[in-house]
Parts: sequence; structure tokens; C-alpha cells
Amino acid sequence: MPRITLQDGMNILEAAFDKARSLGLTVAVSIVDARGDLVAAARMDNAIWWWTESSRGKAVATVAYEGVPSGELLERSSRPVAHGLQQMFHGRFMPQQGAMPVFKDGVLVGAVGTAGGSGEEDEEISGAGAAAVGQ
Amino acid sequence: MPRITLQDGMNILEAAFDKARSLGLTVAVSIVDARGDLVAAARMDNAIWWWTESSRGKAVATVAYEGVPSGELLERSSRPVAHGLQQMFHGRFMPQQGAMPVFKDGVLVGAVGTAGGSGEEDEEISGAGAAAVGQ
Amino acid sequence: MPRITLQDGMNILEAAFDKARSLGLTVAVSIVDARGDLVAAARMDNAIWWWTESSRGKAVATVAYEGVPSGELLERSSRPVAHGLQQMFHGRFMPQQGAMPVFKDGVLVGAVGTAGGSGEEDEEISGAGAAAVGQ
Amino acid sequence: MPRITLQDGMNILEAAFDKARSLGLTVAVSIVDARGDLVAAARMDNAIWWWTESSRGKAVATVAYEGVPSGELLERSSRPVAHGLQQMFHGRFMPQQGAMPVFKDGVLVGAVGTAGGSGEEDEEISGAGAAAVGQ
Repeated sequence: MPRITLQDGMNILEAAFDKARSLGLTVAVSIVDARGDLVAAARMDNAIWWWTESSRGKAVATVAYEGVPSGELLERSSRPVAHGLQQMFHGRFMPQQGAMPVFKDGVLVGAVGTAGGSGEEDEEISGAGAAAVGQ
Repeated sequence: MPRITLQDGMNILEAAFDKARSLGLTVAVSIVDARGDLVAAARMDNAIWWWTESSRGKAVATVAYEGVPSGELLERSSRPVAHGLQQMFHGRFMPQQGAMPVFKDGVLVGAVGTAGGSGEEDEEISGAGAAAVGQ
Repeated sequence: MPRITLQDGMNILEAAFDKARSLGLTVAVSIVDARGDLVAAARMDNAIWWWTESSRGKAVATVAYEGVPSGELLERSSRPVAHGLQQMFHGRFMPQQGAMPVFKDGVLVGAVGTAGGSGEEDEEISGAGAAAVGQ
Repeated sequence: MPRITLQDGMNILEAAFDKARSLGLTVAVSIVDARGDLVAAARMDNAIWWWTESSRGKAVATVAYEGVPSGELLERSSRPVAHGLQQMFHGRFMPQQGAMPVFKDGVLVGAVGTAGGSGEEDEEISGAGAAAVGQ
């Protein structure tokens, strides 16, 4: 059963921050496993303090919905189940654009979330991070 | 790096309450630093008890969004990240009109929030408070 | 029915901060009304951010127990009712030394809480604040 | 005013995990800034999911108490203010052994927390991490 590793987490952070710098952006990035638990997270210098929280919240939502990129979750986000999950997580469940799933051998092993840019930019950065995982 | 001081907080309270009296209004006013932590707060006689909380919540939202007056946050306020932040803060994050940022030397050092009037009136009072800060 | 006023709150802050300076201490001070709702609060420069919260929590506990100085509440603080109240307040109920009641005409109208020194120092500063209220 | 950087965070993680491996331990490590906000965090393969949370909670307590190693906080941890802070942080405030402060030019800029070993082992690993910060 493939799992996301510490090395994966570090590779994702490096690739995501490289992408952010190439776009001239300052962001925070979080990686969670398939359960939604934190594997690794960091924020760039001058990133706003709560971006670590929202990058994580987006990644949690992506794995909670079995790997759907968080940008496709907007419609679901207005439903009572989404509101209930958000309260169960004390707010740390944010079905909003900016996270991408991480797969190994076709199995969902986690997700990457980014915060600091627009939803599209965050998603692009998360995608660059996810692509750094050895398949 | 400029920071907001206790004296700034007291000057803001005095200027904001003077403005409220000139408008014939009863309000509460809160001042937070750039992280969103409370610097000073007070409510006028006969102000409703929770106005201290909502004046603070608006100020927190303004610094959380890097100094945008809270009146410009309505669109963002309906998004999952905003709902999540509100829960992380136990409700003390309220992206609604009535707060203004405080700058020193061009650096965001905090925000003033007001509650008790209309959104426009609250914002005018917060603006009068913010203007009392030595630049 | 006597009530605590904005002017009382400001006088308390001034007297408490004067006392703190005379003791060479940096503190935060909160004043609540007889219901436990915030009337005024402020922190001195370089005070730790959460002292505003704990100064308030001590003042809330004092009025919640009908004016007992919070230093006399240690025994009660270990009881289930105290734990329940603390959770109802999301932590903002702290029956620990450092707050003093405020009376007018023999009626409990509020409390002053201080954080930043030892329990004894905080209580002394709160007492100096409470003494500034016109009886 | 010195601040903790992303590079500091990454250097701390590397040094702390190297120390953990040399001790034959599996841990999670979190780094927070002087306000208690997350800078970086990661967990080793096979670390228990909540160790990221407790490593962070210890680091938060250390900066909240102005840089006292979390192992010296046990007495304070039983007081009402500590319980209140823990509830304000949704549990993410844990004054228990395993965290060490990070200083730059003599200024407290953050803290490192570790979870997974005994309190003494966690503290040793956090200390190795803190020592990796350029002074």
C-alpha cells in the first residue's frame, strides 16, 4: 500500500516554493496524508500567518472528498455536510480552490494545499508540488 | 519596524469617540495590532455589550487581509476560507464594513474597528480613529 | 442603579498603568461590567499578546463569583462548574489571582483584571485601578 | 528586529530529524514564530498522526511564556490561566516538556517543539534543532 513519506513532503515543499518564486508570489504550503493529517508544512518569509492554516484546510478538503481538486468543491461547500465538517475540524476544512491531490501507483496518498495567491495561482503551485512526488 | 503603541491606542479611542459623539452615535471601538491581537478597546455608555466583540472582529479581518478596509471584504466573506477563519477565531473574525487599517511609515501596523452605527458610519468613525495615529 | 461608565474604564486604565510603571512592570488591564462584558482594555508596549485575554478572564471570574477577588477563587477553580464555565466562555473565564471587584454605592458594578506580573503584583495593580472609580 | 525565516525552519527540521535518527527515534517537529504561528512542521515516516499537533502545542507554550523551555512549565500548566489559554487555542497550547526557544541576537524569535520520544528526548531533539539557527 503506497504512502506519502517525509521525503515526499520535503520534495513537494521545495518544488512548490520554486514555482511560487518563479511566479513572484509569497505563499504557504501544506501537505496532508490520505486521512487529512499533516505531513509537512512551511511558509515563505513575509507570508501572512494564517496562510499555513488555509493551505492546510484546502488540502484536508481535497482528501476528504477523495482527491477532487479543491477548486471543484465550491458547489459542495455550501451544503450542510460541508458546514458540519468545517465545524468538526474547528475551521480546518476549507473546500476552496488551491489544493491538488497526490497519487502513487494510482492510489490517493495525500494532497498539497497552497495559500497566498489567487485560487488559480495557488492551484498551479500545488500542482507543481504534487508533480514532485515519485510515482 | 514601526509598531502600534498603547499611546496610539488611546489616541484612536479618543478620536473615534469624539467622532461618534459628533454624529450623535453610541459605539464600541477596538484596536488590534498587525497580527490581530488586541491593543485597546472600549465601549461608550449604553452601547450594546457585544459591540466590543464585533468592533474587534472587523478589525481582525482587516489586518488578516493585509489592510483592506473591512467594507471591501464582503465578497471574500462568503468563501469557505473566510468561514474557516471565523471558526478558528471562535467567531472573532468578521469581514464586514466598519474597520480601517492603521499605517505608520507606509507599514500596516494594525486596524481600528467600530460597531454601533451603520456600516458607513462605523467606517467613518474608524477612519477618524486611524487618522489620530502619528505617521 | 449604579453602573460602570466609559469614564470609569478610562480612569481605571490610567491608574492601573501608573501603578504598573511605579512597580517597573509591563502589563495588560481589562475592565468588565457586572455581567462580565468588556468595558475597556489595553496593553502596555511590549506586553505579551495574550495578557489582554488573561486579564479579562480574571475579571470575568471575579464578577461571575459576585465580586470575590480572583485570588480567593483557587479552590473553586478545580471544580466541575468552574471547568464548565471556562469552556462556555471558550477559555475566557480564569479564576486566578490578579483581579479586583469594582463597587459603587456598595453595589458590584464590575471588575478589573491585570496580567503580566506575579499574582500579587497583578492584584495590587487591579486594586489601584478599582480605587480610581468615583464611589 | 530579527525574525525566524523559512530557511531557519528548514535547517531546524533537518538538524532535529538527524538527531532523532541518531537516537533511534521517530518524531514530529514543529517550529513557530514569536507569536506562536507556524513556520514549518513535518513528521517522520511512521510517526503517529497527532505528534505534529503536540510538537506544535509545546512550541506555542514556550513562546507564550517568553521562551521558557516547555519542561519548566509544568507548575504553571495546572493553573486556570493555562487551562483557559489551552481552550482559546483549541488545545494547541501544551506546556509540557519537549520544546526549546530559538533566539537571534538575544531576541526570542520562535520555538521548536518535538513529540514522539520521552520528554527528555524530545527536548534534546528540539535543542539540536534550535542550535541550527544562524545566530
